[in-house]
Amino acid sequence: MRNINKSVIYTLIFFFIASSVMSGQPGMQNFISPEVKKDRTVTFRFRAPNAKDVKLSTQFINGQQAMTKDANGIWSITLGPVEPDIYPYCFVVDGIQVADPKNTWIFPNEGFQNSVIEIPDATPKAYSIQNIPHGTVSYRYYYSNELGTRPLVIYTPPGYEESVNEKYPVFFLLHGSSDTEETWTKVGRANIILDNLIAQGKAKPMIIVMPYGRAFPVITKESGSLRTWENLQEFQKDFKNYIVPFVEKNYRVKPGPENKAIAGFSGGGGTSLYIGLGNPDLFAYVCGYAPGMVQAEFERNNAVPFADPALTNKRLKLLYFACGKEDPTYGTLQQYIKVLDEKKIKYQTFFTTGGHTWMNCKKFLNETAPLLFKD
Amino acid sequence: MRNINKSVIYTLIFFFIASSVMSGQPGMQNFISPEVKKDRTVTFRFRAPNAKDVKLSTQFINGQQAMTKDANGIWSITLGPVEPDIYPYCFVVDGIQVADPKNTWIFPNEGFQNSVIEIPDATPKAYSIQNIPHGTVSYRYYYSNELGTRPLVIYTPPGYEESVNEKYPVFFLLHGSSDTEETWTKVGRANIILDNLIAQGKAKPMIIVMPYGRAFPVITKESGSLRTWENLQEFQKDFKNYIVPFVEKNYRVKPGPENKAIAGFSGGGGTSLYIGLGNPDLFAYVCGYAPGMVQAEFERNNAVPFADPALTNKRLKLLYFACGKEDPTYGTLQQYIKVLDEKKIKYQTFFTTGGHTWMNCKKFLNETAPLLFKD
Repeated sequence: MRNINKSVIYTLIFFFIASSVMSGQPGMQNFISPEVKKDRTVTFRFRAPNAKDVKLSTQFINGQQAMTKDANGIWSITLGPVEPDIYPYCFVVDGIQVADPKNTWIFPNEGFQNSVIEIPDATPKAYSIQNIPHGTVSYRYYYSNELGTRPLVIYTPPGYEESVNEKYPVFFLLHGSSDTEETWTKVGRANIILDNLIAQGKAKPMIIVMPYGRAFPVITKESGSLRTWENLQEFQKDFKNYIVPFVEKNYRVKPGPENKAIAGFSGGGGTSLYIGLGNPDLFAYVCGYAPGMVQAEFERNNAVPFADPALTNKRLKLLYFACGKEDPTYGTLQQYIKVLDEKKIKYQTFFTTGGHTWMNCKKFLNETAPLLFKD
Repeated sequence: MRNINKSVIYTLIFFFIASSVMSGQPGMQNFISPEVKKDRTVTFRFRAPNAKDVKLSTQFINGQQAMTKDANGIWSITLGPVEPDIYPYCFVVDGIQVADPKNTWIFPNEGFQNSVIEIPDATPKAYSIQNIPHGTVSYRYYYSNELGTRPLVIYTPPGYEESVNEKYPVFFLLHGSSDTEETWTKVGRANIILDNLIAQGKAKPMIIVMPYGRAFPVITKESGSLRTWENLQEFQKDFKNYIVPFVEKNYRVKPGPENKAIAGFSGGGGTSLYIGLGNPDLFAYVCGYAPGMVQAEFERNNAVPFADPALTNKRLKLLYFACGKEDPTYGTLQQYIKVLDEKKIKYQTFFTTGGHTWMNCKKFLNETAPLLFKD
């Protein structure tokens, strides 16, 4: 198959967009979506002249919302005022979930297509991008003999590049089961939350390491939650043999478990508890955000911390759980906490409203980061 | 509007995916797309039980390709063997363009929803990710009084972090009109192409700066090509007042125009020629890849280089044009070259097969980078 003239379709699309924009024909491609107004109402628009039914699905309102079509085939809906936050959303076009083609802010995920919208507040939130010093988000590669070339997203705090002799503590932050190494920054705004906390003197400058949590291709992308035993084993190998050494070789890292923290969301929360509690020589700070766990696996997955609870308490500087009270993982977390109580293992909790969402993840991170790396 | 329980839909989706995966029901969510086989055939799959018509649109074959539906509502098509390269593609579901929800590799673009696929070759290509030293791709923010907080993607070559006293030349690389600051790395593999060239000793280690090329919000996202006069003026201000100073403040940059290059694709190519040739104090290396230009604007946009062609030749170390011969910008580029010939302004060209595609962009970059920053 030769490569000549293969771009004809694209070229046509390119000129169609260009010409429709330039001709200023109302309603062709020349519309905005999403459009957020100052009163925090928001209008979503999607062009689908031949669709029978287009709905909006978003996490700030329950249930799919019917949209209406205008004469140009553009479906729209206006909602709100909406509580300020960052929300995923998609269009459901005759039953098919579609991200918003007018919005470049995409939710990095292996399971669904969603766009992301921010409803700003009059006063800045923990995750608001402000005109303050910003850290750097770096996309790196490391090589694993078992898993090949793997991506790694790494946040370094403001001033890292200049303070060439200073060393920093490291926070390993794991995504949820169908997320990717980009979800904590692109949806969770982990970098911005830390920029803001550091600017306010509420958190210590730290490095945040966000790996891809599935041990692909040894573990298939269709294998379900990251907290399956098989993925825990393979990912832990990758984590200890390659990720930690890569970070220690390439970044100015303070030594010792008192300068290492680990947290994760959902399936990544099950993973962070397993790796964190199972490796007290590595981690003195261990957090689970709405962690994916199964009661029948508590003993097996906690063999190290349960073997000597007093030693576990002595070695851990923080064991922390955060969860929404409507989150489906909340019940299992309560069972787990009951076991910890029986064993007299110390922990802290942060329970909020809401469910298994990235709106909550941002709160969890904002609550946790100030507790890390206390002298 | 309160935030409680808003995630019910998502939670249901989450458990639906988890349970269907775990039950192992064939054909529900448990399929792969795209699936590339060793013989370079590729199967695309998309689940849409209620759709009437699903087609594949991709840049390796002309025209939309009909897909067929199985008993589980999964549409599929197998094509190839396909010429090794990286291609955009999408599904056209009852007339609506949809990215592949099973593929996290998304084409960053403001105008369309596409996924991206790599067809690997038996021998590595210029853009192949290999087990060699990799540079760092950093996501940065800078603040402009006029445009607010703006993104900037910056490549630093392998060894940059360690060689703390070394300074580097800088290559500014602009995306096409509906692309974003991420398109050169995520679709064009600019970082990988440079990693490979540097490892082979074919290009000098350099910093690559990839800004967002639209002067939004002063210039609207619906304003068409980046090479419009209004965007050229506003973006040039941003470029000179904020981007260049940010890079010089935050990176170890070799001084002088002989250590600065600029290139761009499509509307960004029109921009790179305008800014590059208009600022000889900044740039001695100027390239346009399938540049977006209009013949009636040649004199206005080239006032500086045309004013004194002999001086232009003296100051420029490289003026370079690359284009596919089937590219719709090829004709205007030929007219422009004719004007340069009349004015005796020197240049180099690289004309290849194919159209206005990112397959060609990778070739253009791979040809150009070795020509930059010659002693």
